[in-house]
Amino acid sequence: MTSKGHFITFEGIDGSGKSTQARRLAEHLRSLGHDVILTREPGGSPGAEEIRALVLQGDPDRWSAETELLLFTAARRDHMERLIQPAVDAGKIVICDRFADSTRMYQGLSRGDLRGKVDTLHDLMIGREPDLTILIDMNPGQGLARAKGRQGTEERFEDFGTDLQEKMRAGFLGLAKEFSDRFRTINGAQDIDAVAQDVQAATAAYLSSSG
Amino acid sequence: MTSKGHFITFEGIDGSGKSTQARRLAEHLRSLGHDVILTREPGGSPGAEEIRALVLQGDPDRWSAETELLLFTAARRDHMERLIQPAVDAGKIVICDRFADSTRMYQGLSRGDLRGKVDTLHDLMIGREPDLTILIDMNPGQGLARAKGRQGTEERFEDFGTDLQEKMRAGFLGLAKEFSDRFRTINGAQDIDAVAQDVQAATAAYLSSSG
Repeated sequence: MTSKGHFITFEGIDGSGKSTQARRLAEHLRSLGHDVILTREPGGSPGAEEIRALVLQGDPDRWSAETELLLFTAARRDHMERLIQPAVDAGKIVICDRFADSTRMYQGLSRGDLRGKVDTLHDLMIGREPDLTILIDMNPGQGLARAKGRQGTEERFEDFGTDLQEKMRAGFLGLAKEFSDRFRTINGAQDIDAVAQDVQAATAAYLSSSG
Repeated sequence: MTSKGHFITFEGIDGSGKSTQARRLAEHLRSLGHDVILTREPGGSPGAEEIRALVLQGDPDRWSAETELLLFTAARRDHMERLIQPAVDAGKIVICDRFADSTRMYQGLSRGDLRGKVDTLHDLMIGREPDLTILIDMNPGQGLARAKGRQGTEERFEDFGTDLQEKMRAGFLGLAKEFSDRFRTINGAQDIDAVAQDVQAATAAYLSSSG
Protein backbone atom coordinates (compact mmCIF):
# COMPACT_ATOMS: atom_id res chain seq x y z
CA MET A 1 0.00 0.00 0.00
CA THR A 2 1.49 3.32 -1.07
CA SER A 3 0.23 6.19 1.02
CA LYS A 4 2.67 8.79 -0.28
CA GLY A 5 3.62 9.65 -3.84
CA HIS A 6 6.80 10.89 -5.44
CA PHE A 7 8.03 14.16 -6.92
CA ILE A 8 10.46 13.73 -9.84
CA THR A 9 11.98 16.61 -11.81
CA PHE A 10 13.90 16.82 -15.10
CA GLU A 11 16.68 19.37 -15.57
CA GLY A 12 19.21 20.18 -18.27
CA ILE A 13 20.22 22.78 -20.82
CA ASP A 14 17.93 23.76 -23.71
CA GLY A 15 17.75 21.07 -26.38
CA SER A 16 18.95 18.35 -24.01
CA GLY A 17 15.78 16.38 -24.65
CA LYS A 18 14.50 16.60 -21.06
CA SER A 19 10.90 17.41 -22.11
CA THR A 20 10.80 14.37 -24.40
CA GLN A 21 12.30 12.20 -21.67
CA ALA A 22 9.86 13.50 -19.05
CA ARG A 23 6.97 12.49 -21.33
CA ARG A 24 8.56 9.11 -22.08
CA LEU A 25 8.98 8.41 -18.36
CA ALA A 26 5.36 9.40 -17.67
CA GLU A 27 4.16 6.96 -20.36
CA HIS A 28 6.40 4.21 -19.02
CA LEU A 29 5.26 4.62 -15.40
CA ARG A 30 1.61 4.72 -16.48
CA SER A 31 2.14 1.45 -18.38
CA LEU A 32 3.30 -0.03 -15.05
CA GLY A 33 0.04 1.10 -13.41
CA HIS A 34 1.23 4.23 -11.61
CA ASP A 35 -0.98 7.31 -11.36
CA VAL A 36 1.21 9.98 -13.00
CA ILE A 37 0.88 13.76 -13.34
CA LEU A 38 3.14 15.30 -16.01
CA THR A 39 3.69 19.04 -15.56
CA ARG A 40 6.26 21.76 -16.25
CA GLU A 41 7.71 25.04 -15.03
CA PRO A 42 7.46 27.92 -15.23
CA GLY A 43 3.71 27.39 -15.12
CA GLY A 44 1.89 24.12 -14.47
CA SER A 45 -1.21 25.47 -12.69
CA PRO A 46 -3.69 28.06 -14.05
CA GLY A 47 -2.35 30.89 -11.86
CA ALA A 48 1.27 29.95 -12.51
CA GLU A 49 0.64 29.89 -16.26
CA GLU A 50 -0.66 33.48 -16.05
CA ILE A 51 2.50 34.53 -14.20
CA ARG A 52 4.62 32.64 -16.77
CA ALA A 53 2.97 34.64 -19.57
CA LEU A 54 3.63 37.90 -17.70
CA VAL A 55 7.33 37.05 -17.30
CA LEU A 56 8.15 35.55 -20.68
CA GLN A 57 6.24 37.80 -23.07
CA GLY A 58 7.42 41.27 -24.10
CA ASP A 59 10.81 42.96 -23.88
CA PRO A 60 13.44 40.65 -22.30
CA ASP A 61 14.65 43.59 -20.16
CA ARG A 62 11.24 44.55 -18.81
CA TRP A 63 11.98 42.79 -15.49
CA SER A 64 15.19 42.83 -13.47
CA ALA A 65 16.69 39.49 -12.43
CA GLU A 66 15.37 40.07 -8.88
CA THR A 67 11.79 40.84 -9.98
CA GLU A 68 11.84 37.85 -12.32
CA LEU A 69 13.03 35.66 -9.44
CA LEU A 70 10.10 36.83 -7.29
CA LEU A 71 7.60 36.23 -10.11
CA PHE A 72 8.93 32.72 -10.78
CA THR A 73 8.83 31.95 -7.06
CA ALA A 74 5.20 33.15 -6.93
CA ALA A 75 4.38 30.85 -9.87
CA ARG A 76 6.19 27.94 -8.17
CA ARG A 77 4.33 28.51 -4.90
CA ASP A 78 1.01 28.36 -6.74
CA HIS A 79 2.07 25.27 -8.72
CA MET A 80 3.30 23.53 -5.55
CA GLU A 81 0.26 24.20 -3.38
CA ARG A 82 -2.44 23.75 -6.03
CA LEU A 83 -1.03 20.83 -8.05
CA ILE A 84 2.22 19.17 -6.95
CA GLN A 85 1.79 18.75 -3.19
CA PRO A 86 -1.89 17.63 -3.28
CA ALA A 87 -1.02 15.02 -5.96
CA VAL A 88 1.98 13.71 -4.01
CA ASP A 89 -0.12 13.59 -0.84
CA ALA A 90 -2.70 11.55 -2.79
CA GLY A 91 -0.03 8.97 -3.66
CA LYS A 92 0.60 10.03 -7.27
CA ILE A 93 3.91 10.38 -9.09
CA VAL A 94 4.41 14.00 -10.21
CA ILE A 95 6.94 14.48 -13.04
CA CYS A 96 7.92 18.11 -13.59
CA ASP A 97 9.91 19.48 -16.56
CA ARG A 98 12.18 22.03 -14.80
CA PHE A 99 11.86 23.14 -11.17
CA ALA A 100 13.90 25.12 -8.64
CA ASP A 101 17.25 23.87 -9.98
CA SER A 102 16.52 25.77 -13.21
CA THR A 103 15.97 28.92 -11.15
CA ARG A 104 19.25 28.26 -9.32
CA MET A 105 20.90 28.26 -12.76
CA TYR A 106 19.04 30.91 -14.76
CA GLN A 107 18.37 33.53 -12.07
CA GLY A 108 21.13 32.42 -9.73
CA LEU A 109 23.89 32.21 -12.30
CA SER A 110 23.16 33.56 -15.77
CA ARG A 111 21.16 36.73 -14.99
CA GLY A 112 23.11 37.83 -11.94
CA ASP A 113 24.89 36.49 -8.91
CA LEU A 114 21.66 35.72 -7.09
CA ARG A 115 22.22 32.15 -5.95
CA GLY A 116 22.09 33.10 -2.25
CA LYS A 117 18.79 34.96 -2.71
CA VAL A 118 17.37 32.08 -4.78
CA ASP A 119 18.12 29.59 -2.01
CA THR A 120 16.84 31.80 0.83
CA LEU A 121 13.63 32.52 -1.09
CA HIS A 122 13.16 28.83 -1.88
CA ASP A 123 13.59 27.78 1.74
CA LEU A 124 11.24 30.54 2.92
CA MET A 125 8.40 30.23 0.39
CA ILE A 126 8.59 26.77 -1.24
CA GLY A 127 10.27 24.65 1.40
CA ARG A 128 10.70 21.34 -0.40
CA GLU A 129 13.03 19.77 -2.96
CA PRO A 130 12.16 17.01 -5.44
CA ASP A 131 12.59 13.39 -4.30
CA LEU A 132 14.49 12.57 -7.50
CA THR A 133 16.04 14.90 -10.12
CA ILE A 134 17.05 13.51 -13.51
CA LEU A 135 19.74 15.64 -15.15
CA ILE A 136 19.98 15.06 -18.90
CA ASP A 137 23.58 16.08 -19.52
CA MET A 138 24.58 17.11 -23.02
CA ASN A 139 27.20 18.98 -25.03
CA PRO A 140 25.81 22.51 -25.61
CA GLY A 141 26.59 22.42 -29.37
CA GLN A 142 24.40 19.36 -29.75
CA GLY A 143 21.72 20.87 -27.48
CA LEU A 144 21.63 24.20 -29.31
CA ALA A 145 21.27 22.49 -32.69
CA ARG A 146 18.23 20.66 -31.32
CA ALA A 147 16.72 23.77 -29.69
CA LYS A 148 17.05 25.78 -32.91
CA GLY A 149 15.23 23.04 -34.77
CA ARG A 150 12.11 23.96 -32.78
CA GLN A 151 9.83 26.96 -33.25
CA GLY A 152 8.51 28.88 -30.28
CA THR A 153 7.40 32.28 -29.05
CA GLU A 154 9.21 31.98 -25.72
CA GLU A 155 12.78 31.86 -26.91
CA ARG A 156 14.29 34.26 -24.35
CA PHE A 157 16.13 31.58 -22.46
CA GLU A 158 17.17 29.75 -25.59
CA ASP A 159 18.82 32.73 -27.21
CA PHE A 160 21.90 32.94 -25.00
CA GLY A 161 24.45 31.21 -27.27
CA THR A 162 26.87 28.38 -26.60
CA ASP A 163 29.13 30.21 -24.10
CA LEU A 164 26.30 30.61 -21.65
CA GLN A 165 25.02 27.10 -22.33
CA GLU A 166 28.51 25.79 -21.52
CA LYS A 167 28.33 27.68 -18.21
CA MET A 168 24.83 26.29 -17.61
CA ARG A 169 25.99 22.73 -18.28
CA ALA A 170 28.83 23.10 -15.78
CA GLY A 171 26.36 24.67 -13.33
CA PHE A 172 23.92 21.77 -13.57
CA LEU A 173 26.76 19.27 -13.08
CA GLY A 174 27.77 21.29 -10.01
CA LEU A 175 24.21 21.06 -8.64
CA ALA A 176 24.28 17.30 -9.24
CA LYS A 177 27.31 17.11 -6.94
CA GLU A 178 25.82 19.53 -4.39
CA PHE A 179 22.54 17.58 -4.18
CA SER A 180 23.99 14.15 -4.90
CA ASP A 181 21.33 12.44 -2.76
CA ARG A 182 18.53 13.28 -5.20
CA PHE A 183 20.34 13.94 -8.54
CA ARG A 184 20.97 11.24 -11.16
CA THR A 185 22.94 12.33 -14.24
CA ILE A 186 22.09 10.67 -17.57
CA ASN A 187 24.19 10.89 -20.75
CA GLY A 188 21.92 12.77 -23.17
CA ALA A 189 24.22 12.28 -26.17
CA GLN A 190 22.92 8.75 -26.69
CA ASP A 191 19.96 8.04 -28.98
CA ILE A 192 16.55 8.82 -27.47
CA ASP A 193 15.65 5.20 -26.68
CA ALA A 194 18.94 4.59 -24.85
CA VAL A 195 18.44 7.77 -22.79
CA ALA A 196 14.90 6.65 -21.97
CA GLN A 197 16.24 3.27 -20.81
CA ASP A 198 18.74 4.96 -18.49
CA VAL A 199 16.02 7.26 -17.10
CA GLN A 200 13.75 4.27 -16.44
CA ALA A 201 16.57 2.41 -14.68
CA ALA A 202 17.43 5.41 -12.47
CA THR A 203 13.75 5.86 -11.61
CA ALA A 204 13.25 2.18 -10.85
CA ALA A 205 16.26 2.23 -8.53
CA TYR A 206 14.86 5.28 -6.73
CA LEU A 207 11.34 3.82 -6.41
CA SER A 208 12.59 0.51 -5.04
CA SER A 209 14.89 2.22 -2.54
CA SER A 210 12.10 4.54 -1.35
CA GLY A 211 9.86 1.58 -0.57
CA MET B 1 22.43 71.98 -1.71
CA THR B 2 20.33 68.83 -1.52
CA SER B 3 22.03 65.85 -3.05
CA LYS B 4 19.56 63.25 -1.78
CA GLY B 5 15.78 63.20 -1.87
CA HIS B 6 13.18 61.80 0.48
CA PHE B 7 10.82 58.83 0.49
CA ILE B 8 7.52 59.51 2.28
CA THR B 9 4.67 56.98 2.58
CA PHE B 10 1.03 57.23 3.66
CA GLU B 11 -0.66 54.39 5.53
CA GLY B 12 -4.04 53.81 7.15
CA ILE B 13 -7.25 51.79 6.91
CA ASP B 14 -9.56 52.08 3.92
CA GLY B 15 -11.50 55.34 3.89
CA SER B 16 -9.03 57.07 6.20
CA GLY B 17 -8.41 59.74 3.59
CA LYS B 18 -4.72 58.87 3.06
CA SER B 19 -4.95 59.10 -0.76
CA THR B 20 -6.46 62.57 -0.54
CA GLN B 21 -3.85 63.62 1.99
CA ALA B 22 -0.98 62.20 -0.11
CA ARG B 23 -2.20 64.33 -3.04
CA ARG B 24 -2.62 67.39 -0.81
CA LEU B 25 0.92 67.02 0.54
CA ALA B 26 2.32 66.65 -2.99
CA GLU B 27 0.57 69.89 -4.05
CA HIS B 28 1.82 71.69 -0.94
CA LEU B 29 5.45 70.60 -1.38
CA ARG B 30 5.36 71.54 -5.09
CA SER B 31 4.09 74.99 -4.11
CA LEU B 32 7.21 75.30 -1.97
CA GLY B 33 9.40 74.49 -4.99
CA HIS B 34 10.15 70.81 -4.31
CA ASP B 35 10.34 68.29 -7.14
CA VAL B 36 7.68 65.75 -6.10
CA ILE B 37 6.69 62.32 -7.48
CA LEU B 38 3.27 61.09 -6.29
CA THR B 39 2.79 57.34 -6.65
CA ARG B 40 0.92 54.43 -5.06
CA GLU B 41 1.05 50.72 -4.29
CA PRO B 42 0.34 48.09 -5.32
CA GLY B 43 1.51 49.36 -8.70
CA GLY B 44 3.26 52.62 -9.45
CA SER B 45 5.48 51.52 -12.35
CA PRO B 46 4.30 49.93 -15.64
CA GLY B 47 5.45 46.43 -14.67
CA ALA B 48 4.09 46.74 -11.13
CA GLU B 49 0.72 47.89 -12.48
CA GLU B 50 0.54 44.71 -14.58
CA ILE B 51 1.26 42.60 -11.50
CA ARG B 52 -1.34 44.61 -9.54
CA ALA B 53 -3.96 43.79 -12.17
CA LEU B 54 -3.03 40.09 -12.01
CA VAL B 55 -3.43 40.03 -8.22
CA LEU B 56 -6.53 42.16 -7.74
CA GLN B 57 -8.75 41.05 -10.61
CA GLY B 58 -10.75 37.83 -10.61
CA ASP B 59 -11.74 35.45 -7.80
CA PRO B 60 -10.45 36.69 -4.40
CA ASP B 61 -9.35 33.11 -3.57
CA ARG B 62 -7.38 32.54 -6.77
CA TRP B 63 -4.09 33.21 -4.94
CA SER B 64 -3.01 32.00 -1.51
CA ALA B 65 -1.74 34.59 0.98
CA GLU B 66 1.83 33.40 0.30
CA THR B 67 1.56 33.66 -3.49
CA GLU B 68 -0.07 37.08 -3.15
CA LEU B 69 2.80 38.17 -0.88
CA LEU B 70 5.35 37.10 -3.51
CA LEU B 71 3.46 38.91 -6.28
CA PHE B 72 3.19 42.12 -4.26
CA THR B 73 6.89 41.91 -3.40
CA ALA B 74 7.71 41.48 -7.11
CA ALA B 75 5.61 44.57 -7.89
CA ARG B 76 7.33 46.51 -5.08
CA ARG B 77 10.79 45.51 -6.31
CA ASP B 78 9.94 46.80 -9.79
CA HIS B 79 8.42 50.02 -8.39
CA MET B 80 11.43 50.59 -6.14
CA GLU B 81 14.15 50.01 -8.75
CA ARG B 82 12.43 51.68 -11.71
CA LEU B 83 10.76 54.68 -10.04
CA ILE B 84 11.29 55.30 -6.32
CA GLN B 85 15.04 54.81 -5.84
CA PRO B 86 16.13 56.66 -9.03
CA ALA B 87 13.90 59.63 -8.09
CA VAL B 88 15.22 59.75 -4.50
CA ASP B 89 18.79 59.47 -5.82
CA ALA B 90 18.04 62.44 -8.11
CA GLY B 91 17.04 64.55 -5.09
CA LYS B 92 13.26 64.34 -5.52
CA ILE B 93 10.60 63.80 -2.87
CA VAL B 94 8.67 60.59 -3.55
CA ILE B 95 5.26 60.33 -1.89
CA CYS B 96 3.74 56.85 -2.01
CA ASP B 97 0.16 55.92 -1.09
CA ARG B 98 0.69 52.59 0.76
CA PHE B 99 3.99 50.68 0.90
CA ALA B 100 5.46 47.74 2.83
CA ASP B 101 3.56 48.57 6.04
CA SER B 102 0.32 47.77 4.19
CA THR B 103 1.78 44.36 3.28
CA ARG B 104 2.78 43.85 6.93
CA MET B 105 -0.90 44.41 7.78
CA TYR B 106 -2.84 42.80 4.92
CA GLN B 107 -0.66 39.76 4.17
CA GLY B 108 1.08 39.65 7.54
CA LEU B 109 -2.04 39.95 9.69
CA SER B 110 -5.41 39.72 7.92
CA ARG B 111 -4.78 36.93 5.38
CA GLY B 112 -2.60 34.72 7.56
CA ASP B 113 0.05 34.85 10.21
CA LEU B 114 2.79 35.75 7.73
CA ARG B 115 4.43 38.72 9.43
CA GLY B 116 7.76 36.90 9.81
CA LYS B 117 7.81 35.92 6.13
CA VAL B 118 6.80 39.46 5.10
CA ASP B 119 9.73 40.96 7.02
CA THR B 120 12.29 38.40 5.82
CA LEU B 121 11.17 38.86 2.21
CA HIS B 122 11.29 42.64 2.55
CA ASP B 123 14.81 42.62 3.97
CA LEU B 124 15.97 40.18 1.27
CA MET B 125 14.38 41.69 -1.84
CA ILE B 126 13.50 45.34 -1.09
CA GLY B 127 15.99 46.33 1.57
CA ARG B 128 14.84 49.82 2.48
CA GLU B 129 12.13 51.50 4.54
CA PRO B 130 10.57 54.92 3.95
CA ASP B 131 12.26 57.96 5.52
CA LEU B 132 8.91 59.17 6.88
CA THR B 133 5.57 57.34 7.20
CA ILE B 134 2.38 59.32 7.82
CA LEU B 135 -0.31 57.18 9.47
CA ILE B 136 -3.80 58.65 9.07
CA ASP B 137 -5.53 57.12 12.08
CA MET B 138 -9.30 56.82 12.04
CA ASN B 139 -12.26 55.06 13.62
CA PRO B 140 -13.17 52.15 11.27
CA GLY B 141 -16.90 53.04 11.26
CA GLN B 142 -16.08 56.48 9.91
CA GLY B 143 -13.55 55.01 7.45
CA LEU B 144 -15.91 52.36 6.14
CA ALA B 145 -18.68 54.91 5.55
CA ARG B 146 -16.21 56.90 3.42
CA ALA B 147 -14.92 53.85 1.53
CA LYS B 148 -18.45 52.70 0.68
CA GLY B 149 -19.17 56.15 -0.72
CA ARG B 150 -16.68 55.39 -3.51
CA GLN B 151 -17.10 53.14 -6.53
CA GLY B 152 -14.35 50.83 -7.66
CA THR B 153 -13.59 47.52 -9.33
CA GLU B 154 -10.88 46.61 -6.84
CA GLU B 155 -12.91 46.31 -3.70
CA ARG B 156 -11.38 43.10 -2.38
CA PHE B 157 -9.55 44.75 0.46
CA GLU B 158 -12.39 47.09 1.27
CA ASP B 159 -14.95 44.35 1.72
CA PHE B 160 -13.70 42.94 5.00
CA GLY B 161 -16.12 44.65 7.40
CA THR B 162 -15.51 46.66 10.55
CA ASP B 163 -14.13 43.82 12.73
CA LEU B 164 -11.16 43.38 10.46
CA GLN B 165 -10.76 47.14 10.02
CA GLU B 166 -10.63 47.45 13.81
CA LYS B 167 -7.84 44.84 13.84
CA MET B 168 -6.09 46.73 11.03
CA ARG B 169 -6.31 50.03 12.89
CA ALA B 170 -4.76 48.46 15.99
CA GLY B 171 -2.13 46.85 13.77
CA PHE B 172 -1.13 50.13 12.14
CA LEU B 173 -0.90 51.80 15.57
CA GLY B 174 1.32 48.89 16.62
CA LEU B 175 3.59 49.47 13.62
CA ALA B 176 3.77 53.17 14.53
CA LYS B 177 5.19 52.13 17.91
CA GLU B 178 7.50 49.49 16.41
CA PHE B 179 8.94 51.94 13.86
CA SER B 180 8.57 55.09 15.96
CA ASP B 181 11.63 56.69 14.32
CA ARG B 182 9.88 57.09 10.98
CA PHE B 183 6.12 56.95 11.84
CA ARG B 184 4.03 60.05 12.58
CA THR B 185 0.39 59.42 13.53
CA ILE B 186 -2.20 62.02 12.48
CA ASN B 187 -5.80 62.20 13.75
CA GLY B 188 -7.88 61.51 10.63
CA ALA B 189 -11.21 62.28 12.31
CA GLN B 190 -10.64 66.02 11.88
CA ASP B 191 -11.89 67.88 8.81
CA ILE B 192 -9.73 67.45 5.71
CA ASP B 193 -8.01 70.84 5.95
CA ALA B 194 -7.03 70.27 9.59
CA VAL B 195 -5.60 66.85 8.72
CA ALA B 196 -3.67 68.42 5.83
CA GLN B 197 -2.24 71.05 8.22
CA ASP B 198 -1.04 68.32 10.61
CA VAL B 199 0.50 66.36 7.72
CA GLN B 200 2.33 69.47 6.51
CA ALA B 201 3.64 70.20 10.00
CA ALA B 202 4.90 66.62 10.49
CA THR B 203 6.58 66.71 7.07
CA ALA B 204 8.16 70.11 7.71
CA ALA B 205 9.56 68.83 11.02
CA TYR B 206 11.01 65.77 9.27
CA LEU B 207 12.51 67.80 6.41
CA SER B 208 14.16 70.33 8.71
CA SER B 209 15.57 67.59 10.95
CA SER B 210 16.95 65.66 7.96
CA GLY B 211 18.90 68.69 6.82
